[in-house]
Amino acid sequence: MSPQQEPVPSGPPEVRAAISREEITGHTAALCPGYAQANLIILPREWAFDFLLFGLRNRRACPILEVLEPGDPLTQSMAHGADLRDTLPRYRVWRHGELVEEPTHIRHLWREDLVSFLLGCSFSFDDALAAAGLPVRHQELGRNVPMYRTNLPAAPAGRLQGPLVVSMRPMPAELVEQAHRVSGAFGEAHGEPVHFGDPGEIGIQDLDSPHYGEAVPMHPGEVPVFWACGVTPQAAVAASQVEFAITHAPGHMFITDLKAEELARESLVSCAV
Amino acid sequence: MSPQQEPVPSGPPEVRAAISREEITGHTAALCPGYAQANLIILPREWAFDFLLFGLRNRRACPILEVLEPGDPLTQSMAHGADLRDTLPRYRVWRHGELVEEPTHIRHLWREDLVSFLLGCSFSFDDALAAAGLPVRHQELGRNVPMYRTNLPAAPAGRLQGPLVVSMRPMPAELVEQAHRVSGAFGEAHGEPVHFGDPGEIGIQDLDSPHYGEAVPMHPGEVPVFWACGVTPQAAVAASQVEFAITHAPGHMFITDLKAEELARESLVSCAV
Repeated sequence: MSPQQEPVPSGPPEVRAAISREEITGHTAALCPGYAQANLIILPREWAFDFLLFGLRNRRACPILEVLEPGDPLTQSMAHGADLRDTLPRYRVWRHGELVEEPTHIRHLWREDLVSFLLGCSFSFDDALAAAGLPVRHQELGRNVPMYRTNLPAAPAGRLQGPLVVSMRPMPAELVEQAHRVSGAFGEAHGEPVHFGDPGEIGIQDLDSPHYGEAVPMHPGEVPVFWACGVTPQAAVAASQVEFAITHAPGHMFITDLKAEELARESLVSCAV
Repeated sequence: MSPQQEPVPSGPPEVRAAISREEITGHTAALCPGYAQANLIILPREWAFDFLLFGLRNRRACPILEVLEPGDPLTQSMAHGADLRDTLPRYRVWRHGELVEEPTHIRHLWREDLVSFLLGCSFSFDDALAAAGLPVRHQELGRNVPMYRTNLPAAPAGRLQGPLVVSMRPMPAELVEQAHRVSGAFGEAHGEPVHFGDPGEIGIQDLDSPHYGEAVPMHPGEVPVFWACGVTPQAAVAASQVEFAITHAPGHMFITDLKAEELARESLVSCAV
């Protein structure tokens, strides 16, 4: 059932409960307006140092909201007691850098050495963009956001390396500066854009063929605006051939109990942008 | 040779070179005025995730300036190419949580799995306190700063737990607020105090018997002011019986090439206070 087909429960706990019952399995763009959403990556403890350092060295793409203790699947600061094993609509399971499965829960895959990381997500500021009168094309069309691997390298850390991944929203040229300003206030949700204009400059060949999510049309007078994206860790898992990892499926996020503007208060690594 | 006995070279690279030749083996308080100093902790990769998370969860005590790759002893952002194995005047070697050795270099102990962390140090703002007309008693007396274990628990992370350690500077009661303001600008060097007044409130029984460093006298009308201290990781190593760790000896810091006010620019985890 896609969230566009019929009314869904609106509060984060209710939506997460519906997700855990597999009543919602689609992407989460436009779900729970105003609430912060989060990227997920789960790694064996053996890879946890590399990833935590990778996140710190790539703050724009990987703003670290919460890190759980090894073996603990229950969030604390982002949502009290939510079980990360079934409160996201879809997951990706990676073995030796290969995507092997996209299940709707990961209860059967849980291990005591798994460490879960929640990272900020740009869906958190889509409502603020819309409220400021800026277009949010994927929301307007009920689609997932388009995401692309770039030719910009993320800063490596330990055994992890890979490209920066970005999400894209078309903006009228005269509103690009305002898009910077509005999103810039959400430092724990990727903050201001990393690029706008010519996609080729950051190695994107074809906007109509995103590597993740769904394409959206550009209107006359619009330019593509690119934000660092929390799928960057997935590209690193693939590029670095990590033995085992679980992530959210792109666009299928963890919905937190925090309003987007409250993120900084509870974030593990909160900073002024 | 203590730094008080005769003139020493004044620039950080020259002072570090003198330290590596063991011409300076005393504490580093008052060395290289205006330059940021740093706490050091070196752990096997097996403990690196626990510690990085411990640092993030205890930002006031453990502001993370730089994390080196496993096996790499050469700093990059805090001082280009300085070798952490002999550019601090004295180290502490810990085995199973016990202090076993205090050598002047650790070249013989280096291993390919060791991960080095540099953390901010309150010596970085002592010159700013003095420039603002505030007393810096330990500097006036050519002593190390007094440091104490408190009854305040640090936030645990993984297998690491222990008490918050604080440094103390006596301040005239009417200048405590100014001490807050001046040090508060140095968020990567512990920032503003965590406590002032009655030491018993944070579990310190006797100011004249610090757990680390040297006692300093209080003058009439002064109150003790306490800052979170980068010796906190050493107390955690002891309390958590970590198999192997190397730290700086308290007060015997790494002197960086950065001016204290430049720390935020290069810090791995820089934030507005």
